[in-house]
Amino acid sequence: MGTGNNYYKADLRDYKFLFFEQFQLDTLLGQGELEDWGKEEVETVLDGLYQWSCDVLGPLNGSGDRQGCRIENGRVITPDGFAKAWKEVYKNGWRELGVPPEHGGQGGPYSLYVATDEIQSGANTSFAMYPGLSEGVLNVVLKFGTEEQIKKYAKPLISGKASGTMCLTEPNAGSDVGSNRTKAEKIEGTKYKITGTKIFISAGDNDFTDNVFHLVLARTAEAPVGTKGLSLFMVPRLNEDGSDNDVAVGSIEHKMGINASATCVVNFGEGGNCVGELVGTEEEKGIRQMFLMMNHARIGVGTQSLSVASSAYFNALEYAKERKQGASIKNWKDPAAPRVPIIEHPDVRRMLLSMKSRVDGLRSLLVKLTTHTDHYEFGQLDDAQKAYHKGQVDLLVPLVKAWGSDEAFDICSTAIQVFGGAGYTQDYPVEQYCRDAKIMAIYEGTNHIQALDLVGRKLGQKGGANFQAYMKDFGAFIAANKDNETFASELAELQKAQQAVGGCAMQFLGWFQSGEMALVPLSANRFLKMFAETTVGWLLLEGAVIAQKGIDAGTGDKDFYEGRIASARFFAHNILPTVANSADILRKADRSCLEISDAAFGKVS
Amino acid sequence: MGTGNNYYKADLRDYKFLFFEQFQLDTLLGQGELEDWGKEEVETVLDGLYQWSCDVLGPLNGSGDRQGCRIENGRVITPDGFAKAWKEVYKNGWRELGVPPEHGGQGGPYSLYVATDEIQSGANTSFAMYPGLSEGVLNVVLKFGTEEQIKKYAKPLISGKASGTMCLTEPNAGSDVGSNRTKAEKIEGTKYKITGTKIFISAGDNDFTDNVFHLVLARTAEAPVGTKGLSLFMVPRLNEDGSDNDVAVGSIEHKMGINASATCVVNFGEGGNCVGELVGTEEEKGIRQMFLMMNHARIGVGTQSLSVASSAYFNALEYAKERKQGASIKNWKDPAAPRVPIIEHPDVRRMLLSMKSRVDGLRSLLVKLTTHTDHYEFGQLDDAQKAYHKGQVDLLVPLVKAWGSDEAFDICSTAIQVFGGAGYTQDYPVEQYCRDAKIMAIYEGTNHIQALDLVGRKLGQKGGANFQAYMKDFGAFIAANKDNETFASELAELQKAQQAVGGCAMQFLGWFQSGEMALVPLSANRFLKMFAETTVGWLLLEGAVIAQKGIDAGTGDKDFYEGRIASARFFAHNILPTVANSADILRKADRSCLEISDAAFGKVS
Repeated sequence: MGTGNNYYKADLRDYKFLFFEQFQLDTLLGQGELEDWGKEEVETVLDGLYQWSCDVLGPLNGSGDRQGCRIENGRVITPDGFAKAWKEVYKNGWRELGVPPEHGGQGGPYSLYVATDEIQSGANTSFAMYPGLSEGVLNVVLKFGTEEQIKKYAKPLISGKASGTMCLTEPNAGSDVGSNRTKAEKIEGTKYKITGTKIFISAGDNDFTDNVFHLVLARTAEAPVGTKGLSLFMVPRLNEDGSDNDVAVGSIEHKMGINASATCVVNFGEGGNCVGELVGTEEEKGIRQMFLMMNHARIGVGTQSLSVASSAYFNALEYAKERKQGASIKNWKDPAAPRVPIIEHPDVRRMLLSMKSRVDGLRSLLVKLTTHTDHYEFGQLDDAQKAYHKGQVDLLVPLVKAWGSDEAFDICSTAIQVFGGAGYTQDYPVEQYCRDAKIMAIYEGTNHIQALDLVGRKLGQKGGANFQAYMKDFGAFIAANKDNETFASELAELQKAQQAVGGCAMQFLGWFQSGEMALVPLSANRFLKMFAETTVGWLLLEGAVIAQKGIDAGTGDKDFYEGRIASARFFAHNILPTVANSADILRKADRSCLEISDAAFGKVS
Repeated sequence: MGTGNNYYKADLRDYKFLFFEQFQLDTLLGQGELEDWGKEEVETVLDGLYQWSCDVLGPLNGSGDRQGCRIENGRVITPDGFAKAWKEVYKNGWRELGVPPEHGGQGGPYSLYVATDEIQSGANTSFAMYPGLSEGVLNVVLKFGTEEQIKKYAKPLISGKASGTMCLTEPNAGSDVGSNRTKAEKIEGTKYKITGTKIFISAGDNDFTDNVFHLVLARTAEAPVGTKGLSLFMVPRLNEDGSDNDVAVGSIEHKMGINASATCVVNFGEGGNCVGELVGTEEEKGIRQMFLMMNHARIGVGTQSLSVASSAYFNALEYAKERKQGASIKNWKDPAAPRVPIIEHPDVRRMLLSMKSRVDGLRSLLVKLTTHTDHYEFGQLDDAQKAYHKGQVDLLVPLVKAWGSDEAFDICSTAIQVFGGAGYTQDYPVEQYCRDAKIMAIYEGTNHIQALDLVGRKLGQKGGANFQAYMKDFGAFIAANKDNETFASELAELQKAQQAVGGCAMQFLGWFQSGEMALVPLSANRFLKMFAETTVGWLLLEGAVIAQKGIDAGTGDKDFYEGRIASARFFAHNILPTVANSADILRKADRSCLEISDAAFGKVS
């Protein structure tokens, strides 16, 4: 145990396409805070990290899954090789992109940061959660911590001396964060006594950092009920003098996947002596502070989803090129015809292109989101422009998280199908990808929570301004391509889908106004899917138009461009036509599941 | 290890509804070969087996998964408790339904046999594969064996002294059965020397029977290439004198699921001394003989799929009734509103009813199939009537296997979603159901092989007579209900779907005739799904009409009937409207995946 084969496979060309051809990240590089960053620097990071991830993280992915985590003497023992890999991550500076320069980091574009997250997560999803969560905690500390807190907590997180976790969930407070019961009693100043049990704490402990910084949502005695009464506390495993704080890992979960990420029960204050520090100086700001981390984590889950889906695709593709089985359909009547690689079979090609189009689509969606972030963070913009970019990010977060994770699970399952029986065995990585992917639809806000966020908050945000701006951008693309004959049929499908999405958005408004509140959550998931698919259809077609120009100009890379065009065509003709159909179903709003009595759902014999 | 909780949950009421209200199995009972069978006998078997399965098989399901199988001294060691359970199965006579009375069995209706298969498989999928495969071997022996072979092999299989396996797959012959290379050289009479390696042999060995009867597809020296040159051999692990035959279990696979079912590599004749016996007296009849077992196994996989999907549904349902989280949507603005069981949330109800409608639908599809078999086997019919029933079975087998297994995987995944994070842990059975279910889309002919069977063989079988008879029955149901106002909107959806299916069947004919052969496999899976959904929509509505009559007549069981009606309505309004949409996509036949070059699929960096 401890090392095995690397199965991680990616095509970095796609990032280079998205960054520099489609989303024009280069317009932001070489100036202002990104003065030191050019195309070459971005590519160097991607290439170097990919190589390192394949060398170090990839070989630990399967072995980590088989070995899992365990508890010894009150601490989590991670799989063989993880501690060494952790040290290398920080020594090599692979997480410095997430750290501002004033704290010694590289402070590069967010788009690049997320790309590096995909690479680390694709090579080893479980491993990448440890530094990923630490970085989320770092962000909160840097943004909301006092100067003294930053001094105390940021450095160990940046150097990898400490790790971090986010502690929201309790036995009775999962999706319902507002039901949190963990108690905080003021001792003095920013010091509080913390008492409570948190569950499902990802990367909750490890054997490579002495200290673990837990960010804990808790409630002070006088605080109101619900999320508004929550405060956020930093609760380190070790006190400042190095003694043990009253924080104990109770147990770890045995799970379907991400087995090398320790999912912990963490008990705070069992002995009545757990000391935490209020983040910042004000109580009852916890949910807003935690949201920074949750947003980071939601984009992170979309990135994770992409990472396994993409590697599942490339593994399936390589297998399909090598594995011979059956004769070509052209020789279907001749039992003696030569056997061919299965990529020649139409159904295998269909599966592969359905995977590829969604992988390309999800990465496009993610880079659209991160580019908006980069414009917001690094662009020379007025307030209105800033608000526009911020609004687009808000709108896209639930899509990236929920559509991404649902599709990733399906893509990984399709990868198993391409492999056939071999894919069901642990001889190949795809069954693990599938098991790992399932949690992504659940944690950091279930996909229904994402859908509620979309229809209940994001659509109507700022009086609908973000959605309107989105629709305007969308319309501009369609208008700009109205004479495009190469993609005329695809653009027609896109326009139909866009109209369907617009109609459904109005339908939600109608339900809100008429008080038919139950129809909103009932239809929220369906709408999120339609909205995401339509957006992906748009971005893939935008990419295809660019790719076609590349082919026409003879600028090389014809295979890549052709693949991008095929993704767009496949998606336009196989996925987009379902959107208007979904809109019909949504608007008719079948109420059967609301009307059925609980008893009629059935009775166990 | 060895025992745990029973999580198996079923509602036997549904079988009683399907048998005696919808498909009128009782018209066949109490006469002819079913003289000793009445409603009461059928119910007694179901109730008794369910109780026993919950007591004995259910508690071994989780522990069997965790423990898995291993090889010791050349034999497979199954998980704790399996050997004891095997003995009880045969002592209690739970497999006697699959045995004709002349061989000491109970010879009951096939519908009941399949129902008992669901129960055993639902309680413990991996375990049920051992007796299930044995029974498949028994069927082949009884149907194709010589009198002497029946004498030799049937009794140990019936008593549970021996188990059986089906050995088709080889390293280079999976979906492509015709590429089988295992060699058979005649020694004398029916005795042959067998040499070759078979892989993915389910229930390939065990530690509860001394002898294992392997049914092996192999090729004699002069035989033609392809499936037509294959012969079938009985290759026992032990020779008649009790000495070891030259049969060795090489290794077992480490898999995503069904871990307690030993998936073996079996080597025949490594020492040059493996003796097999030709089944029957003629060579090159192997594929036809094996097809009996494959048909049995395909229906078995549909049954397995139903079994885990159904138990996943009931586990999710019970959890949803118990687990409190969040406030009712009616109080969405009040953070202090009381917490409610999650079954009150619209999205949870949507998930549950989407699961229930498909579970009800798959069971209806299966009982339709088995009722046709029962009419064929036990009805007093002329040849034309027999052919009709046989034809409907042929048509339905690929639907039950492929649609069943695809939906089962999705239903189990949805069950995890209902549980949230808890469902991802091994504290509940749903993650195992999901892992177990994935193989069902692959083995016994991948779901694409099923789709090819449907469009390439079954649609056109007997000049299309089977499909036409199906459409006639379908049309008769619609005609009989043309004035039904209660389900008018649902019937309208059904009719639209039926027309779409009919249109697509003609489209396939067109592609065959115009030589656009690649479009057939390209669209086969899509068509199978449409066809299955439309059939399920029909059967659910037929059930709903009966349930409504039951409610109107006040014949009790109102909850059950209401649930059946809700299933039909949900399916009609959420699934059936996608069928015509799929038909549009199918007919437009997007060729992007055929046109893309292999290189354009992408290149790993």
